Amino acid sequence: MKSVGIVVEYNPFHNGHFFHASKAREIANADCVIAVMSGHFLQRGEPALTSKWARAHMALQSGVDLVVELPYAFSTQRAERFAFGAIHILHQLFCKSFCFGSESGEVQDFEEMVQLTNNRHNDIQKLIQLHMSQGSSYPKAQSLAYEQLFHSTAPIDLTKPNNILGYHYVQANQQFPTPMIPLTITRKNAHYHDEIFSSKHIASATSIRKALLSTENGIDEIAPYVPKATFLALQHYLQTYGSFHYWEKYWPFLQYKLLSSSPLELRKLYEIEEGIEYRLIEWARKTNTFEHFMKQVKTKRYTWTRIQRMLIHILTNTSKEEMNKKGNSPEYIRLLGMNETGKTYLNQIKKQVSIPLITKISAFKELIAFDIKATKIYSFALAPEFRQKLLESEWKQSPLIVSSPTGKELS
Amino acid sequence: MKSVGIVVEYNPFHNGHFFHASKAREIANADCVIAVMSGHFLQRGEPALTSKWARAHMALQSGVDLVVELPYAFSTQRAERFAFGAIHILHQLFCKSFCFGSESGEVQDFEEMVQLTNNRHNDIQKLIQLHMSQGSSYPKAQSLAYEQLFHSTAPIDLTKPNNILGYHYVQANQQFPTPMIPLTITRKNAHYHDEIFSSKHIASATSIRKALLSTENGIDEIAPYVPKATFLALQHYLQTYGSFHYWEKYWPFLQYKLLSSSPLELRKLYEIEEGIEYRLIEWARKTNTFEHFMKQVKTKRYTWTRIQRMLIHILTNTSKEEMNKKGNSPEYIRLLGMNETGKTYLNQIKKQVSIPLITKISAFKELIAFDIKATKIYSFALAPEFRQKLLESEWKQSPLIVSSPTGKELS
Repeated sequence: MKSVGIVVEYNPFHNGHFFHASKAREIANADCVIAVMSGHFLQRGEPALTSKWARAHMALQSGVDLVVELPYAFSTQRAERFAFGAIHILHQLFCKSFCFGSESGEVQDFEEMVQLTNNRHNDIQKLIQLHMSQGSSYPKAQSLAYEQLFHSTAPIDLTKPNNILGYHYVQANQQFPTPMIPLTITRKNAHYHDEIFSSKHIASATSIRKALLSTENGIDEIAPYVPKATFLALQHYLQTYGSFHYWEKYWPFLQYKLLSSSPLELRKLYEIEEGIEYRLIEWARKTNTFEHFMKQVKTKRYTWTRIQRMLIHILTNTSKEEMNKKGNSPEYIRLLGMNETGKTYLNQIKKQVSIPLITKISAFKELIAFDIKATKIYSFALAPEFRQKLLESEWKQSPLIVSSPTGKELS
Repeated sequence: MKSVGIVVEYNPFHNGHFFHASKAREIANADCVIAVMSGHFLQRGEPALTSKWARAHMALQSGVDLVVELPYAFSTQRAERFAFGAIHILHQLFCKSFCFGSESGEVQDFEEMVQLTNNRHNDIQKLIQLHMSQGSSYPKAQSLAYEQLFHSTAPIDLTKPNNILGYHYVQANQQFPTPMIPLTITRKNAHYHDEIFSSKHIASATSIRKALLSTENGIDEIAPYVPKATFLALQHYLQTYGSFHYWEKYWPFLQYKLLSSSPLELRKLYEIEEGIEYRLIEWARKTNTFEHFMKQVKTKRYTWTRIQRMLIHILTNTSKEEMNKKGNSPEYIRLLGMNETGKTYLNQIKKQVSIPLITKISAFKELIAFDIKATKIYSFALAPEFRQKLLESEWKQSPLIVSSPTGKELS
């Protein structure tokens, strides 16, 4: 059996994701589509709208055959670490290829760009440092460095979010002795940051979340843009847990954490440096909502995303020391769910996988302590009576087994 | 001018407190009644129902002339440290005498008891250790030790809560070269732990809090048992801040703190020892309310009060290291409020007071960092929009100046 890997957040799974999964299967000529999906906290420093179980379920009903978890130690990192963790896991699962959406759409361009930048690694790093010392954020400094070095000769535009991720996937993949075949497809219609629906059936996850969270009939509004399975899963989630998960729900706990910690304690947490802890504490005292807090804390130097990632680590009390221990390379693969195809594939490869494949956590409590803690904290968006139910899902849930046809039409 | 000191929590100020203050003035033949009052967290490991400002206000309108704060580092301690801190402050304020309520009612009995126990200090300590090693709580072990050593010859019954405090006041007072005159009055009618109203005008603070928190018309129900000023102050507090402060309100934050901390981190906090951190973490995961949590965590060895004090230190993130630095003896006196009499008295003595008398905190931020942090955390019982108002009271509030007659009749 031949598999293709994809790197996803599915926050939530929508028609664009359906298109991506089926296109990946098609151009890779794969029997099995494997998604490595972020757990409860995401790369832009946000909690996922619903639990990883609910999101895995959506995916398995809409064309994905096997879903495994991208651990906290990678899912909440800047693009380079994030990409490395995800590619590492797909590699461990013997994917023949991986396929990502990008603005560019040409995989040769990514390979060329990686080649170009590998050759100029030191020059790039120096220029990035220079621009950061002049007050630019990391992404801005990076893009300025590329512009200076490559001008219009750069084969891809690294100011585009999906190009950046793709670039890092390709780069990470080349570090393995037997790399996977990289594939890319052009992202259709919706732009990553779009907040309004711009097409009849395709909308960005951002605009879908916005609709879900800001209007009373959010679920009905998003119906045209998501598979039926997503629609039902979101409805079911609300019925089961009483709420979605989003930053504003964690604000009281973040504020409490900031106001009960000393600057020294905060400095021990991952990504907290350069004195930003004082700024965070000060504004935690002076603001009442997460949005107001973020607007005050943001500066030119610190992007919204970077600050949100810091705040996730503060909220989960994740130290530099712990993260440096766990963040080298994925030490396990946690199975979230599969259909018959995924199960067959897994049975074929599982004896060759060199790190633990986790189906029940009881024997691996220490190894996945980080993800357990992430789930504990993730549960705090819910009312007390629902928190425990979510926590139990972390302890008791076996991988989902979903019987579903693959490659079915848009519902 | 002659002053008498009293040690109080006023949670809330009731008719029994009024009786205590006027009786203290009478038997001490004092011009000025000085109350050293616990700040936002109390000796039994509980948040005070209302802010220290609201409670100081109640007291100043009902017969107390000067209110100063017992800092967090003493107000949340077991009887011995609590008493030492309070007596130290009254001594610094040149009180000629101090007056406490007790079950015994005879001050000579306390002096005799202190004498007796001082002589047998080592024997007592050994017996206490023995009983604790056999699983008794500290108060139980102490009372068993006294029973073994003194049988019926003990002049006071140290199983009674006010006798215990009184004993420690008298003992602390004797450590000063020029001790104050100790005075005691018998507590009237209401027993400390009473949860029901047992008299027409006198009720325990416990029963008053219970009525306030458990019934919708709580405020009306308690009217017969508190001065009019208390009644109005409680009404005003609800209007201003939307809620009283009680443990259940802090439960989400305590649970979050327990679930986001490692056992090692908890062990660094004050009073957390002997492995209880594991028990606390385990039950935080399995329970949904503070009451349920407490019922599960309590053991024969750990009294309800002792556990609540631990939990206060966990909630406020107070480390052993910090507490050992701050807890030796009070390093400042914070003025909460006064009437004309209190002001005159203060003007007479203030030049002789050997530690800072704090009226505005801006110049003393470092010194009272503990009390500032306590207030930050205390604010989390309130809705976000009210938290800041309470925090500002800590920063901006000058001592209250209340014009009120002293020694007025019960309203």
